[in-house]
Amino acid sequence: MNIEWLDKAAAKLDEQARQSATERQGQLTKPPGALGRLEDTAITLASMQGKVKPTLENIHVSVFAADHGITAKGVSAFPQAVTGEMVRNFANGGAAICVLAESIGANLEVINLGTVNDPGEIPGVIRQIIAVSTADFSEVDAMTEAQFTAALNTGRDAAIRAKENNASLFIGGEMGIGNTSSATAIACAILDMAPAALAGPGTGLDSDGVSRKVVTLQSALELHKTTYGNARKALRCMGGFEIAALCGAFITCAQERLPVLVDGFIATAAALCAAHICDNASDWFLFSHASAEPGHQSMTTSLGAKPLLDLGMRLGEGSGAAVAVPLLRLACDLHNNMATFAEAGVSEKSE
Amino acid sequence: MNIEWLDKAAAKLDEQARQSATERQGQLTKPPGALGRLEDTAITLASMQGKVKPTLENIHVSVFAADHGITAKGVSAFPQAVTGEMVRNFANGGAAICVLAESIGANLEVINLGTVNDPGEIPGVIRQIIAVSTADFSEVDAMTEAQFTAALNTGRDAAIRAKENNASLFIGGEMGIGNTSSATAIACAILDMAPAALAGPGTGLDSDGVSRKVVTLQSALELHKTTYGNARKALRCMGGFEIAALCGAFITCAQERLPVLVDGFIATAAALCAAHICDNASDWFLFSHASAEPGHQSMTTSLGAKPLLDLGMRLGEGSGAAVAVPLLRLACDLHNNMATFAEAGVSEKSE
Repeated sequence: MNIEWLDKAAAKLDEQARQSATERQGQLTKPPGALGRLEDTAITLASMQGKVKPTLENIHVSVFAADHGITAKGVSAFPQAVTGEMVRNFANGGAAICVLAESIGANLEVINLGTVNDPGEIPGVIRQIIAVSTADFSEVDAMTEAQFTAALNTGRDAAIRAKENNASLFIGGEMGIGNTSSATAIACAILDMAPAALAGPGTGLDSDGVSRKVVTLQSALELHKTTYGNARKALRCMGGFEIAALCGAFITCAQERLPVLVDGFIATAAALCAAHICDNASDWFLFSHASAEPGHQSMTTSLGAKPLLDLGMRLGEGSGAAVAVPLLRLACDLHNNMATFAEAGVSEKSE
Repeated sequence: MNIEWLDKAAAKLDEQARQSATERQGQLTKPPGALGRLEDTAITLASMQGKVKPTLENIHVSVFAADHGITAKGVSAFPQAVTGEMVRNFANGGAAICVLAESIGANLEVINLGTVNDPGEIPGVIRQIIAVSTADFSEVDAMTEAQFTAALNTGRDAAIRAKENNASLFIGGEMGIGNTSSATAIACAILDMAPAALAGPGTGLDSDGVSRKVVTLQSALELHKTTYGNARKALRCMGGFEIAALCGAFITCAQERLPVLVDGFIATAAALCAAHICDNASDWFLFSHASAEPGHQSMTTSLGAKPLLDLGMRLGEGSGAAVAVPLLRLACDLHNNMATFAEAGVSEKSE
């Protein structure tokens, strides 16, 4: 397997479409700016889709599941068996992202990259097992080079499938007990921050649990101190298969002109890696929601992003991104279907 | 015309349904609280609808349009003719709320309560003219008692129509050049605050314009100083027909067990009046978005409310509420359709 594609440049946004969309916004029957961030959202989507009137009919959601060796250190409030159990729940339609995908009419696929509690072959789950779990990155590298390449490629595969199915938006979700620890460690290495500043409760650790998580991450980051400032290395040495897959998917989307709606804490860590590995990849990222996980804001700030929603969500699975999809669609509908002042015969602002 | 109905008590929420819905949330396959405010939203709707699994199929939007005498003092960035022009734009489907109502599948009605530039009889617009405009409240009372009663009753009529059409949610919108001045004055009187603390650009005044607006409002509030602490009097003396109609609609909704999704600055001023006129009416209000108008936060804080969205919107028409409808629906879908831990065979949080 090769990852030469990783070095390909991100596509450029269509500045002409952005300009035309901006002009259109100024002509709609409302005070200038009165639709707030919905205006910017429509204009950004116009620049991504290369047309004055963007649309979001076809939403693709890929949820990557994988287990983490670091859970041996007691960094999660839930037992590791849950990752595999949730893969089955995804297949049966009972998880949050299943309900949301159905409600917003999105195409949902689940990719199992390796779980200790293996649900086996399940209809509706793509099986691309890399290993039963990553290695415990507080002891050794989380992934070998071969595993890392495989994980990145599974993400690329998903983005290519989305592109081939004419998706107009890509959402990447994840499931992996222990993965806030992994995402936190990656963020620390890229942002040059200490675990105490970024670590949080994840699925629901109490304050003692968070303290233990911080100590584990401090030790792990000491072991992997050469990853500081090196996103690719940080992702391999401390990431999860699902986080590397998301990173590969996001970079591919940016290369293939497919807008990405980034979910919460884990997906943002993957987006941060993508932005550091592939220049301007983040031009293609929209940020859906501010995670309740405290370290999220440091990542979005570093990416120059302000998420659309702030609902205190902290579930993952792509759920926060799915919840934001209707806002993006309404932004497009308003932009595309409102009357202009001239069309409606409405007087403009007084000089 | 009578307004004896105004003194009727607000209905009580169903605490049993709230309790059952809260228990259900705790059993769904996610960490407790991981869906953030979507969980509370579903639980609140359950208590309003009196059933464990609330639904929002039928959304009713009433937009009230009316002109304001205070515009003679130059308090708006747009000419007064726009109110009547926008009534025509509503009828033709070109305004933001028309696009949004179509997208979310809501039933939209427009009620013309009186505009200086009279669009006349228009198909699709309910004509309940009270006067061509309110009087200039910087000089005299905005409304006579008879006009005030008529305005409250038009709002009640709309809420009753919604109820009779089996609406599961009521949204009240408004259009009226000059109505941020009116709403600001009402808020000052109810919250005992100075205009300088609450007045903002409305549809787009520059800083000189905002300063003029503050001076006009200071003078008007001095004239109407007996309205301080008296919401009903403040609404009659400084309100608009559309704001009084919204207040009447909101109180009726609270009496008739119809949940209200409150829009931005103007609608929140009406909700504030409703909460002060009718005890516990605000139990029936959900707050959709934080307006970009700076005084909005003082009103929502006073109401103990934290709006769901903060997108920098400041359009009115019910547009911010309409944008929040999909969030409410997704909150219900998640609450109603996710699998429980027992159903999915997923392990719960470790002790």
